Amino acid sequence: MSTKPPSGTRDFLPSDVRRREYVIGVVRQVYERYGFEPLETPAFENIETLLGKYGEEGNKLIFKILKRGEHESSGEADLALRYDLTVPLARVVAQYQNELPRFFKRYQIQPVWRADRPARGRFREFYQCDLDTVGTTSPLVEAEQMSAVAEILTRLGFQDFVIRINHRAILSLLLTKATLPPSQHSDALVVLDKLDKVGRDGVSKELAEKGVSESGRDALLKWMGAGERADWLDWLERELDAADHPAFLNLRQILDVSRRTPAGERFRFDPSLARGLSYYTGAIMEIAVPDLAGSLGGGGRYDNLVGMFLGRELPACGFSLGLERILVVMTERQMFPTSVVRGGVDVLVTIWSHDTREESLALASELRRAGLRVDLYPEADKIGKQFKYASARTVPFVAILGDDERARGEVAMKDLRSGDQTSVSRAEAASYVKSRLDG
Amino acid sequence: MSTKPPSGTRDFLPSDVRRREYVIGVVRQVYERYGFEPLETPAFENIETLLGKYGEEGNKLIFKILKRGEHESSGEADLALRYDLTVPLARVVAQYQNELPRFFKRYQIQPVWRADRPARGRFREFYQCDLDTVGTTSPLVEAEQMSAVAEILTRLGFQDFVIRINHRAILSLLLTKATLPPSQHSDALVVLDKLDKVGRDGVSKELAEKGVSESGRDALLKWMGAGERADWLDWLERELDAADHPAFLNLRQILDVSRRTPAGERFRFDPSLARGLSYYTGAIMEIAVPDLAGSLGGGGRYDNLVGMFLGRELPACGFSLGLERILVVMTERQMFPTSVVRGGVDVLVTIWSHDTREESLALASELRRAGLRVDLYPEADKIGKQFKYASARTVPFVAILGDDERARGEVAMKDLRSGDQTSVSRAEAASYVKSRLDG
Repeated sequence: MSTKPPSGTRDFLPSDVRRREYVIGVVRQVYERYGFEPLETPAFENIETLLGKYGEEGNKLIFKILKRGEHESSGEADLALRYDLTVPLARVVAQYQNELPRFFKRYQIQPVWRADRPARGRFREFYQCDLDTVGTTSPLVEAEQMSAVAEILTRLGFQDFVIRINHRAILSLLLTKATLPPSQHSDALVVLDKLDKVGRDGVSKELAEKGVSESGRDALLKWMGAGERADWLDWLERELDAADHPAFLNLRQILDVSRRTPAGERFRFDPSLARGLSYYTGAIMEIAVPDLAGSLGGGGRYDNLVGMFLGRELPACGFSLGLERILVVMTERQMFPTSVVRGGVDVLVTIWSHDTREESLALASELRRAGLRVDLYPEADKIGKQFKYASARTVPFVAILGDDERARGEVAMKDLRSGDQTSVSRAEAASYVKSRLDG
Repeated sequence: MSTKPPSGTRDFLPSDVRRREYVIGVVRQVYERYGFEPLETPAFENIETLLGKYGEEGNKLIFKILKRGEHESSGEADLALRYDLTVPLARVVAQYQNELPRFFKRYQIQPVWRADRPARGRFREFYQCDLDTVGTTSPLVEAEQMSAVAEILTRLGFQDFVIRINHRAILSLLLTKATLPPSQHSDALVVLDKLDKVGRDGVSKELAEKGVSESGRDALLKWMGAGERADWLDWLERELDAADHPAFLNLRQILDVSRRTPAGERFRFDPSLARGLSYYTGAIMEIAVPDLAGSLGGGGRYDNLVGMFLGRELPACGFSLGLERILVVMTERQMFPTSVVRGGVDVLVTIWSHDTREESLALASELRRAGLRVDLYPEADKIGKQFKYASARTVPFVAILGDDERARGEVAMKDLRSGDQTSVSRAEAASYVKSRLDG
């Protein structure tokens, strides 16, 4: 029998969990500082809650759970694994509408499951990390969310990221003013979205293939250059003859109120940004890092979705951090602090002999009380074997309670990184180690 | 369509998640101080990994996942939701045997799913919180695990818990010396396990019903009193004529080496403790709290299980904290710190007028930089409405940037708990709040 995890899933061994928990810890702390609160929903939903919410393709990718007991043999499913965090949010908003605050600001970090064909970097079980503010159309929401996201990325060590920003209504306006018939709009959006990948010539060629006229292509490509202009907002507003258009007003407000936040300097207007999902209705945002294909997260305003179970519109704006991708990039670029990478143990307390086990356990207790992470070797093995075990677990310090040390009330501390060994008094043992631990 | 979570599952709203995260945070921190490392496995396993591992009853309670795509209509399942954390551990130990350290000390805190009939306090999705040490029979393992558990419970605020301890081999010895035929052993264990519930007379009556002879019943009940004697180990050893029996030696060692650990004073020998699962092979432990039916966790040594996928015996000892039960008891007994219960926000920054939004956002950024959890009201509503929102979210402080305050470089801070309002300089705003926050 195979002992591998199921196709498309992963076991997270301790070094993996430590990395994941480090990133999730930063995300969680920053989101809480911004007044967002944690939500968790069950791994599975009633199947009718999910079916039909993700299109026909989505229906096929949902993991469905067989009925139990006597109904199992029917081959029917009544439950299904969570496919994203937005539908559960919509369900929660409907179910607890009288208990939730008027503005519901929640984050949710949980796995979702999709029966995609597994591939490099694509999994059937992966974490989503969603932030949503429900109940207001205020541009302060976009400003706050992007401020939080910028703070998280900065804390994680990303220095050169930018926040690409656009607005769904500006995209529509661009296409209309370029005289594209509505039937060409969605094709054109898909092509424009590839501008940073295929370049201006590539976009022009693909637009032509989709039947966009030469004048239409020229106009679109001219306006796509807006992001490089310092006066882009004014310029594009004039170009499109759109003074006082609410979309421009909205972007202007988001950028204005963000000025003194961590996101202030990060925004880059990018009229080619379309984002795939058709449910966005307002500003859309995406995190880009130079030299990195794809984004570290994206989101925007979507005012018609969270109310799906309420039967009425409910304004909402959300952002999804690409947790799995952030982990891959941080690992590749070695961005984790030493304390996260080096292992889970600060000191290994060895067992000198069968008779000194209680003494070793007492030393371990002392070191733990001082806040150190302490492993105790379980057996009175040869000391060399105990050192080898410490090396294998990349423990930086080994404590030895030999006969001489015990007689003097001391403990020998060996630093396995440098090879130095020195005796310190029991009372000073913890602070000796602490002062020599990196990060 | 119902917007309730599926039968037997729960949505965890922010106040629930905060409580859960608080307890899990303490567990995690203590376990890491003891050199245990985190493991996470996928929510589902290949179905053959789980089937047959939990008996016939267990097979029925496993949630099974339908094959996907063209195979969906077959009604067959190829995956199944995690049913416990022990089988995944056994799979991981087999799969990564060359990467894992010689003594593998892991903890795992993840949900499991069982299709039990939902009832009060019994769920179909619930968290397990398992600690296991694999690869050694040393009694230091039991000592370390119980020390960690005692430290966790103490930190969570449990003061009067005891660690009931017994040994599987002592149980067998008791039954044999009481001249019960082997065919009566498992029935008798079930009855003895109820001693603290039904009392001595109840046990005697039930044993008689199971066909245990009068002399057998008298012997068993006499020995059940061992736990009340200070010299129970010596006394019972003599009574059972079992000097040098390895089980007594083992218990003696566990208690001896534990003496100077947080668990030292907590152990209570209890010869009636049987624990349901027949896979235990050595010491067994269970946490009891006076005035509380049932336990807060249990475990013991089980040397024949973790090697199931390796095809060889692998010594192991584990303990499972009753996370869901701990949460219920802590909620009922109001054991959570104020900071956990009161809500997720320390200060609400209000919006005085449309024109001062950027200023409010800047103040929020300042307070966040100082480590406070800050919510920003998103709209320039009437100030009374903003206060009402703060009250509804149980935010203790509200910050107001009125015209006067802004002119003086100050901010008005209202303490919603006392009703006091005072103006402080912007630079002192954060420390003003921090010094007045409870716990």
